[in-house]
Amino acid sequence: MATAMYVKADQKLLRILRVRVVDKAGNLGKIATAIGDLRVRIGEISIVAQGPDFIIREISIQVEDNEHLQQVVDHVGSIEGVVIEAVIDPVQQMHEGGKIAVRSRVRLDSLAELRQIYTPGVAQICKLIHSDKNFSRQYTSISNSVAVVTNGTAILGLGNIGPVAGMPVMEGKSVLYEQLVGISAVPILIDSTDSDHIVQTVKAIAPTFGAIHLEDIAAPACFEIESRLQDELSIPVLHDDQHATAVVVLGALLTITGRMGIDLAQACVGIIGLGAAGLGIAQLLRAFGVRDIYGTDLRDDAKRRLQSMDGKPTDLAGVMRSAEIIVATTGVPGLIKPEMVRVDQVILALSNPDPEITPELAIERGAKFAADGRTINNALAFPGLFRGALKAGAHRFSDEMKIAAAHAIAGQTKMDNLVPSILDREVHQHVADAVAVASVNQNGSLD
Amino acid sequence: MATAMYVKADQKLLRILRVRVVDKAGNLGKIATAIGDLRVRIGEISIVAQGPDFIIREISIQVEDNEHLQQVVDHVGSIEGVVIEAVIDPVQQMHEGGKIAVRSRVRLDSLAELRQIYTPGVAQICKLIHSDKNFSRQYTSISNSVAVVTNGTAILGLGNIGPVAGMPVMEGKSVLYEQLVGISAVPILIDSTDSDHIVQTVKAIAPTFGAIHLEDIAAPACFEIESRLQDELSIPVLHDDQHATAVVVLGALLTITGRMGIDLAQACVGIIGLGAAGLGIAQLLRAFGVRDIYGTDLRDDAKRRLQSMDGKPTDLAGVMRSAEIIVATTGVPGLIKPEMVRVDQVILALSNPDPEITPELAIERGAKFAADGRTINNALAFPGLFRGALKAGAHRFSDEMKIAAAHAIAGQTKMDNLVPSILDREVHQHVADAVAVASVNQNGSLD
Repeated sequence: MATAMYVKADQKLLRILRVRVVDKAGNLGKIATAIGDLRVRIGEISIVAQGPDFIIREISIQVEDNEHLQQVVDHVGSIEGVVIEAVIDPVQQMHEGGKIAVRSRVRLDSLAELRQIYTPGVAQICKLIHSDKNFSRQYTSISNSVAVVTNGTAILGLGNIGPVAGMPVMEGKSVLYEQLVGISAVPILIDSTDSDHIVQTVKAIAPTFGAIHLEDIAAPACFEIESRLQDELSIPVLHDDQHATAVVVLGALLTITGRMGIDLAQACVGIIGLGAAGLGIAQLLRAFGVRDIYGTDLRDDAKRRLQSMDGKPTDLAGVMRSAEIIVATTGVPGLIKPEMVRVDQVILALSNPDPEITPELAIERGAKFAADGRTINNALAFPGLFRGALKAGAHRFSDEMKIAAAHAIAGQTKMDNLVPSILDREVHQHVADAVAVASVNQNGSLD
Repeated sequence: MATAMYVKADQKLLRILRVRVVDKAGNLGKIATAIGDLRVRIGEISIVAQGPDFIIREISIQVEDNEHLQQVVDHVGSIEGVVIEAVIDPVQQMHEGGKIAVRSRVRLDSLAELRQIYTPGVAQICKLIHSDKNFSRQYTSISNSVAVVTNGTAILGLGNIGPVAGMPVMEGKSVLYEQLVGISAVPILIDSTDSDHIVQTVKAIAPTFGAIHLEDIAAPACFEIESRLQDELSIPVLHDDQHATAVVVLGALLTITGRMGIDLAQACVGIIGLGAAGLGIAQLLRAFGVRDIYGTDLRDDAKRRLQSMDGKPTDLAGVMRSAEIIVATTGVPGLIKPEMVRVDQVILALSNPDPEITPELAIERGAKFAADGRTINNALAFPGLFRGALKAGAHRFSDEMKIAAAHAIAGQTKMDNLVPSILDREVHQHVADAVAVASVNQNGSLD
């Protein structure tokens, strides 16, 4: 696993120092030396402005923590002719003003264009759609739009921080949708923990969208919300945390078991943590044909849900003892103790940012494969799942579509990687095509 | 009024002929001559493709109607060496695939960028907003976003055609918002005619947006929906059809009465048609200080609403007899008979696409000023109203903010025009600034 690099980077703070320096040969050397003295790595250095006798530079640095940063600021600031104008957090800068915008796809430079886009020309398009609603697929953005709906109750590993604090994640999803598969994804924040209220709200605005992506809604409410919406709407509804994660896990397991020369359907799989992700994985593995699925969770209702899909609830030790393949999604760092690991076990410890056991430690204890949540990222699945469903005009996501997506992910995995690169647009296109074909094979095309 | 040109253009069909022609000198002349023979004007001619011995061109033409178009197709198609490959409707082409898209404002080319935009970097921004919700103004798109909400019950002059058939209009609003003032406007279609359901739905999703723009919702439901939402939400809510139209009418009347040297507050105004637009105009004129407002409508409840704002309900003849300034918003073409027009009256007949009386006819009968709905376009007001309210962090639209917008529109009107150009971005900036100043003067700044 090539993840060690990231672990180190995560422990550091990225910052940009904006310094105003007297423009004299040797001054940059003094600054760089001062920074190096504190064992701090320097990244890019750019010139922001140049005056008659001074220069303003931005210097990227990686420090250990805020105390370390303060040492750098003090040390650099004490150099003669150097003033630190600002300490910038590049992550904050990236999010400044929000990460998405609704943009026009047409030009508006002349009255003639205005009269085609808006009144009176637009009336002709309205009448066309009024005569046959299917024209909305051709002449509006509806069938290329996905609502990314959250109530903010399970944002990343942060928990219930509310929908507004979850907005940066929703905008992040929109960025991925647009950049990876060209879908318009519209965040919708609902300030409610009442499942019925959420269902009614999403149903009411559903005509605006081609599909509904539920995001970071806590279990068990997420199960009821998804299944009621899917029953009552004729457009695809998918809770990302349950199903997109499951698709990527299935894809990775297909790759791993293929290389090990074993049949995944005959393997014994153990799921630790039966929240949205864990149960989604159990459900998809069951649909794929995996016969023995053990699982554990602190909550009895979660164990009952596993039992209702013919899984076998047990305790942590029982899962670790019984299963050849372990998938953990508990949010509890270090939950899997090194001594629990069985030789030749496959361990996917997916909690972010800190896994139940680090891949390094699991391998050390004899695991055959190990990976964490940075490798198994649901962003490998959801863009293609939705692109494919919209393309096929599907009314829902079937198990066949999800399994097709997992096969496509496994098929696109190169050399000894576990999964393909998220940034490879072709991978998402392959997933989308596989999903669309699976949908059309089941239901026929709508077009 | 320079509107006669548009009236003529409206009566024609714009089409593009895509022709494949044997590449030989003189052939284009034959085609152009054939088109001219049928008294059809030719617009742009572009080359789409060029082969070894042929050329494909697109020729823009304006024909009277479909029969006329067929004559052109037959005549041009009969020329030796010419094949008509397609007849394209440029308006349909403009709307193909929808007119808007959600786009990323950041690049996604590297894993480092992915880890800042999405997990794990995004968690830091979520935590910041969780610690203080006001950070959402800085680090999300919320405070630059407006929901454009409709239930499709009063789309343009087309009436109750439903929300999906109304989508092209909502997308048109989004185009205007983005192109004129840089606001992200998100269409929200609600398939309901139940006011309470609409209010509950909009309230539930309101955390996503900085303001709510209600669009093309029929009277009288629009009044209750707007007032309840504004009472229950702490972000600005505005029904465009009522208030943006009213702002532009007030702006135009300030210009007209200024030129006539009369005091608008002392004038007697008559409103014909007391739907959303008519009552919005009555309400704003009353807030401005106009003392005598006569009005008429077929429905008694509409007349009662006028009376509740101290207006004087009467009949059509009564309005035309009593008022120096007439504003008509009935949707009934030709409702104002020529013989009803009084000498020196000001007549704004605003129904689209066909006014209650054409400006030409009104002037002929002695009116001092006359205009129709192509001149008085609410797109002059709503972009600046919302831009200004968002900038000021306003919680609602006050009469003072609307009157400030009207003054800004009048102040930006050049020479002998009635209103400024919709496409002049500076006009919208002036309106936004005036609205923001009016809001801050009343409530202080939030920033």
